[in-house]
Order: sequence, then C-alpha cells, then structure tokens
Amino acid sequence: MLLKYGIIGTGAIGGYYGGKLANGGKDVHFLFHSDYEYVKSHGLQVDSCDGSFHLENVNAYNDTKSMPKCDVVFVCLKTTRNGMLQQMLPSILHKNTVVVMIQNGIGVEADLQKALPNIHIAAGLAFICTGKVGPGHVDHQYYGKLTIAPYNFDDEELVKNIISDLNGAGVEAVTAEYNIARWKKAVWNIPFNGMTVAMNTQTDTLLQNPATKQLIYDLMIETIRAANHVNSGNPIGERFADVMIQSTKAMIPYSPSMKLDFDNHRQMEINYIYSRSIEEAAKAGFKMSKVEMLEAELKFIEAGYLKNAAK
Amino acid sequence: MLLKYGIIGTGAIGGYYGGKLANGGKDVHFLFHSDYEYVKSHGLQVDSCDGSFHLENVNAYNDTKSMPKCDVVFVCLKTTRNGMLQQMLPSILHKNTVVVMIQNGIGVEADLQKALPNIHIAAGLAFICTGKVGPGHVDHQYYGKLTIAPYNFDDEELVKNIISDLNGAGVEAVTAEYNIARWKKAVWNIPFNGMTVAMNTQTDTLLQNPATKQLIYDLMIETIRAANHVNSGNPIGERFADVMIQSTKAMIPYSPSMKLDFDNHRQMEINYIYSRSIEEAAKAGFKMSKVEMLEAELKFIEAGYLKNAAK
Repeated sequence: MLLKYGIIGTGAIGGYYGGKLANGGKDVHFLFHSDYEYVKSHGLQVDSCDGSFHLENVNAYNDTKSMPKCDVVFVCLKTTRNGMLQQMLPSILHKNTVVVMIQNGIGVEADLQKALPNIHIAAGLAFICTGKVGPGHVDHQYYGKLTIAPYNFDDEELVKNIISDLNGAGVEAVTAEYNIARWKKAVWNIPFNGMTVAMNTQTDTLLQNPATKQLIYDLMIETIRAANHVNSGNPIGERFADVMIQSTKAMIPYSPSMKLDFDNHRQMEINYIYSRSIEEAAKAGFKMSKVEMLEAELKFIEAGYLKNAAK
Repeated sequence: MLLKYGIIGTGAIGGYYGGKLANGGKDVHFLFHSDYEYVKSHGLQVDSCDGSFHLENVNAYNDTKSMPKCDVVFVCLKTTRNGMLQQMLPSILHKNTVVVMIQNGIGVEADLQKALPNIHIAAGLAFICTGKVGPGHVDHQYYGKLTIAPYNFDDEELVKNIISDLNGAGVEAVTAEYNIARWKKAVWNIPFNGMTVAMNTQTDTLLQNPATKQLIYDLMIETIRAANHVNSGNPIGERFADVMIQSTKAMIPYSPSMKLDFDNHRQMEINYIYSRSIEEAAKAGFKMSKVEMLEAELKFIEAGYLKNAAK
C-alpha cells in the first residue's frame, strides 16, 4: 500500500522528515506558511550530514483545504500553534488517518484528542539536531531517529508501514510505548531547554560547571520520578539520567529549540514542556518542585521580551 | 558605663550604624579599607532620610592592630571576607567583648565561634536600605531597625546597654531569640537576593509577574519550613510569607545587596545566604529543593562573570 503523507509545518523537522520521504519516492504533501511561494519556484533544499539533496518539484500547499486526504499526517508545528489544529486538520483526515505529533512536551496528544475526539493519534519523538537556515532550506546536523508511539489506536500494520517507509527513505525509525517514549524525551527536554534559556547559555557550559551539572541531574531525576508516578507499571531507571548527561557531553555545544525561540524573541513552548508535565505529575501525586521553579523563571523571561516586542 | 564601639568594615551598614552612634556622642572606632585616607582628611558624611549629618573628626584606622580594645564590635564586612576575622579580631577583644555580626545569611556566628572559640557573639539583623555612594559617603534611604540576637552568651545587661545606646542615637533597636531572628531575615533574603540576580531585575518586577510572585512565595514557604525544622520549638507561621510579600510591595523598586554585588561583578554571598541555609536545613531533615536550584543558578552566574573579570 502506498501511503499518502501530509506534513503540517515544513520547517526544520517537517522539512527533514518529509523531505527524506519524498526523496525516497514516497507520496508527500507539504504545508508551508511563509516559504510557500519560494518553494513553489525553487524547491526544497535539505543539507544533511547523511547526504544532502534537493527536491525540485514539491507538492506544496499554503492551506490544508487544498491538500488531499492523507493516510499519515506529521504535525511538525511549534506547540504554541496547536490551537489551529482543530480547524486545519479535519479536511485532510479519513477514518483511519494517523496524526503523528512530532512535537516536544507532555499532553499534546491528550489536547488534540479533546479538540478532535475521533481521530487516531501517535506521538513522534525526534532525536535530531536540525535547523531551518533560510526559506525552503533545512540544515540537518546530527542524529535523526524518529520514535513513533501510538496514543489512542491499535493498528500495528499501519505503524509498521510508516516505519518501513521511513527506514526505506534512510530515516532510523522505531515504535515504543507511548508514556515511556514521551517522558524519556522529557528527561532531556525539561532540564536543557529551560536551563539554556534561564542561564542564557548552551548545553556544554551547563555541564562544565559543577553546580549546574548537579542541577541538570536533579531536574532529570525529578522528571524520571514524575514519569514513574504517571506510568507506574513500567518505571524508567534513574541511571537513565547518567546516560542522558553522558550523551549530551558527547555532543557539540548545543542550543535546544527553546533557546532558539528565546534568542529570536519568539513565544516558548513553556506550556507543553513544563506546565503540562507538572500537571500530569501532580495528578499522579508527585510534585515537580525544581521544574516548577524553572517554569516560573521562563514565564518571567518570556513576559519580559514579549512585552518589549509589543512596544 | 560608656561602651567603646569598634566598627569592622565602614561601608553602607557600618558607616550608618557607627556614624549614628558617633553622632550621638558614643565612643566609636572605625576600621576603613580603601576610604581610610579620604576619611582622615574629609570626615564621614551620612545622608539619611532621618536627618543627614557630617562627622568631622572620625576615629579612623586602617588596621585593627592600631585600634583600642572594644566592648562591642560590629562586624559589617561582606561575609565573603569573613575568612579574615580570625586574624583581625583578637587584638581588639577583651574577655567580655561582644562581637555583633551585622551580616546576611545563616551560620556566620557558628563559623566565627569555630575560628575563635571563646568569644561572645551576637547576630545583628539590619532592616535597612542603605548604600555607599562615594568614599566616606553613606546614603541611608529607608528603615534602619537593628535586631541584636545573642548567639552564645548570656549578658542581658550588656545587650540592654547596646540597645539603649542605639536608641539614644536615634536607631530603633531590639533584641530577639537567635534562631528566629536569623531565619526570619532569611525568609526575605533567600528569595529576593537570588531571584533579582537570576532574573536580572528588581523586587517590584518579580512581584508584578504572577509566576515569579508565586515562586517568591514558594521560596519563602520553603525557608519557613526549613526554619521550623531547625528551630522546632518556636515555629514561624506561614502567614509570615504574606507579610513579607506585602511589605516588599509597599517598598520602591529595590536591588538587594546581592544584586548590587552582581551588577558590580563582585563575589556574591552565596555561601551564607544559600549553601549554609541548605546545610542547616538538611541536618534538621529538611530538603530546600527550590533554594538548591537558586544556589546552583547563582554559582553558575557568578562563575561566568568572575572568570570574565579574571581574563
């Protein structure tokens, strides 16, 4: 079966995964915002550590209303735009479409299900360093693995086909249990996204200073304990924090997506990365005390620059 | 009995309290560092909301070795200088001298007793807004109350005489139980000193943003709970946090002393305001989780600017 893919938000993430699939001969339809006209005339350029490529003829759209119905939809928007999905998605969905939320944070699937109760949703966890460097121009630097974790449906065949398409197109892809997958990603995202903003620095500097290295570790342990309250049957071991710290040390100095949002005075994904994680943990009886503090600092910092931007 | 006063560190605090006593006719001997020559020729100027005054002839010294033995010593150094006290103090002390540590934080008296085991020590808690604005020039803006809390001696008569001298010189002064007095001050110092540095702002802005207002409150509650573990017989009510927040709201936008240290790239009093508080609480079985996080952020921030200063 040839699956039809829709990419909602063709930036660093959508441009890379959608681009790889299209370059591998799959049927991919891309929604663009500001880059629409540029890509119509110039195509999509993906620079990649795994081999760069150019797509000359891209199925490009600037409105989901013009897109065909898709079997698989990758939502690659910033979560700060998720309020638009209730309007954007229905016209491209059929009964069995799976919507893969390739986004950061906790709770994006639950909120989408609240907005659109009968659709099939999966989490997409991207372990990748990639950026948009110009209109229709993605720069993929490291890694690239995509984990697909079904949230509210049971269609092993379809998930297997998506993974097979991705693998065939040169993307490492696996499936995993939903809660474990989401929270394991949060173990990295929660400390590094917020702390690089709060301290206005990059990953390496935080790990060089003994005080912030310990704090990063403490934030990871707090996230693991929260995860294990939410998902009590299948605990994440606390050694996972050491693994995450070691693998981050092995990376080049890195600015997580929230740091880039901060640097560019854009709204940050505080809600899904912090507030919703804290809420889900609280519901399960666990207080994320240090993470609460980071959330408050980020809200203060964001309010400061958004207010200045509005002036 | 005419008490002889020694002021160790004649800056914003020492210059004000020592200046008031001298202006009130008391026998006061001042240790200066960089301002010594200036004050020898020009005297000491205290601008004050309660009435400004100039002291023409100041008993000024640049070494404790030249000072007389004193009955009362006010230590008004930054706590980052406390390592010098073991050398500086003995020559000006007699058997019954009381050393009043007018400093921020938790543990300064315990550490001084370790260094000089047989001396009489009291805490001095200054509720004051004052700054040094030039050589031999203090600007006292608001408040001024001094609480004197004996740490390791029992000499009610002497404490009464000091308070009487202060009152007579126009300074509101009272005595209080040591642990309660130190920790009540910490309830304000811990949130506002660190958070104005971490967020690079002043007291008012932190209280205008709902997220940081809640965080300030949470840090206060954490400090009150730590205090009540350390000092279980005589608990501080949690309503004290509301009182502190309301009284800070009533102040003009304020930069606490740690914020001034940060602004001037000086070492901050992280050890006594944060590390020692966390230690004392931990010994009493209480984890100051958010305060630990603030401590780590401050260490990171300080290391950044001290390293740059050293370049």
